[in-house]
Amino acid sequence: MRQAGRYLPEYRAIRARHGLLDICARPELAAEVTLQPIERLGVDAAIIFADILLPLVPMGVDLEFAAGEGPVIHNPVRTAADVERLVVRPAEEALRQVLEAIALVRRALDGRGVPLIGFAGAPFTVASYLVEGGSSRHYRRTKELMYGDPAAWAALMEKLAAMTAGYLAAQVRAGAQAVQLFDSWAGALSPRDYREHVLPWVRRIVAALAPLGVPVILFGTGTAGILPLLAEAGADVVGVDWRIGLDDAWERVGPEHAVQGNLDPLVLFAPAEEIERQVRAVLAEAAGRPGHVFNLGHGILPETPVDSVRRVVELVHELTVRHT
Amino acid sequence: MRQAGRYLPEYRAIRARHGLLDICARPELAAEVTLQPIERLGVDAAIIFADILLPLVPMGVDLEFAAGEGPVIHNPVRTAADVERLVVRPAEEALRQVLEAIALVRRALDGRGVPLIGFAGAPFTVASYLVEGGSSRHYRRTKELMYGDPAAWAALMEKLAAMTAGYLAAQVRAGAQAVQLFDSWAGALSPRDYREHVLPWVRRIVAALAPLGVPVILFGTGTAGILPLLAEAGADVVGVDWRIGLDDAWERVGPEHAVQGNLDPLVLFAPAEEIERQVRAVLAEAAGRPGHVFNLGHGILPETPVDSVRRVVELVHELTVRHT
Repeated sequence: MRQAGRYLPEYRAIRARHGLLDICARPELAAEVTLQPIERLGVDAAIIFADILLPLVPMGVDLEFAAGEGPVIHNPVRTAADVERLVVRPAEEALRQVLEAIALVRRALDGRGVPLIGFAGAPFTVASYLVEGGSSRHYRRTKELMYGDPAAWAALMEKLAAMTAGYLAAQVRAGAQAVQLFDSWAGALSPRDYREHVLPWVRRIVAALAPLGVPVILFGTGTAGILPLLAEAGADVVGVDWRIGLDDAWERVGPEHAVQGNLDPLVLFAPAEEIERQVRAVLAEAAGRPGHVFNLGHGILPETPVDSVRRVVELVHELTVRHT
Repeated sequence: MRQAGRYLPEYRAIRARHGLLDICARPELAAEVTLQPIERLGVDAAIIFADILLPLVPMGVDLEFAAGEGPVIHNPVRTAADVERLVVRPAEEALRQVLEAIALVRRALDGRGVPLIGFAGAPFTVASYLVEGGSSRHYRRTKELMYGDPAAWAALMEKLAAMTAGYLAAQVRAGAQAVQLFDSWAGALSPRDYREHVLPWVRRIVAALAPLGVPVILFGTGTAGILPLLAEAGADVVGVDWRIGLDDAWERVGPEHAVQGNLDPLVLFAPAEEIERQVRAVLAEAAGRPGHVFNLGHGILPETPVDSVRRVVELVHELTVRHT
């Protein structure tokens, strides 16, 4: 959950000299940033440094990260003709730098027992940026397209799903030992809309990855109401945020899935004793079941005290037995 | 759900000449605005026009609605000393204009069979604005206070709960026939934090209103994970957003409560056939059970086509039998 990010001084030092897309374009930099939290925190896995919108660039999207403003897409996709223009190219060529970074990280981690997770944005979440032209609060244009031109919407999901499945498979071939699909904003949809307009394509991506034999994690926020549908997508692990109890979430997801989560990242701003109490509470809800992947419920904020993050990692290690 | 709001041209006409707090301060204007959707849409109930932050002004809070920016609080509450300075005054004196508007609306609705709903913000949601100084995405300062100084937090909840209980009771005495408690952002909390830092005070407000014998509605968004806790607060009706199926929500809330909801307000931007399909789907999930109050899952956006809103009201009337 942005374990390589702006709360780390060593990350800020690199970002002072390089833009986000610039880091992603240079495998040795991306690899360095990916490894920072491994050194600093002792976390149990690395996750490749990249951005969920990065694969849009080779599709023909004019993406910019404006300083302090988040992503801006200068040619948003709002019509069937716009969808038509998006190009799906083989990841080995279109996203070569990410794959090279993965190979570099794997080499650096060799023999350290720390696996590397690859990732991609899921079609709905990526589409929301693509249609809105950036971040959104109400997803008005996205839903307008979904409701108003379901055929164009399906064509858009189709292309994003094809791209995503190819990209994640290429990440696995490059060395990723698990992959996470970020459907961060899927919780903005009703179960009805998720089932009809999103789930078929997430399911297809997960199915395409099955032959590769690596665990697939499906994550979203605000998903308490659609957890049974996320489970239907077929991923091995369902990632949940803190807005539902981990025990309740697991019951909704079903025992055949592992569950990842779910400490509120804002707890990292609390005093040490409160952090400990909350970490213990999450672990108590997991009840020691194998298949619980401890994690934050969403991304670390830039202002987060590094010591609090490190303390959480130590605590989880103290309080649990790893099932490996 | 903002049925009197900027999507109505007759509301915009008044807002062109009067600020939000200005309308709230003039009972005849507030009453006029309250009645607009009754005339225009034929909805089954009126809800008094006011703002959830209005009661903060007589508590000593410097509140401003900056054009296009939402609420700004110039003296946010962040310490125990800040909480200490907040004054709880009797609503009859401190919020006289709202009570007068309620009386005016009741007179206007007399004999029309349209009940009037009063409302207030719930302590957590109001506190979030009060602590942050306005709207927020992550509620960082709010949670910092809650985790970092639980005694100051409890004192803040205490004052807000006392004010809210008094304010709602005064609204009932002035003529409101039901009251709604808006805990719009309660869904930002984990069940753990909601139970410990919020629920006791919501429960206290609901209990204080019980002797008045009017239905109490408790509403929040993103609450799928905490619905059982909202039910514990004891309100007659639990309002839910669209992020969970109405049937699923009702099961989580329990059969002893009525449920209000839950059409995604973004559906109002869809073509007519899609709107109809979605309205029918919500009603199908309610399965004709008495105790379903059809509503949107959250506020109407200003750009919403009025005709779509009217069509939804007509459809619900066509497709249901009112249990009165």
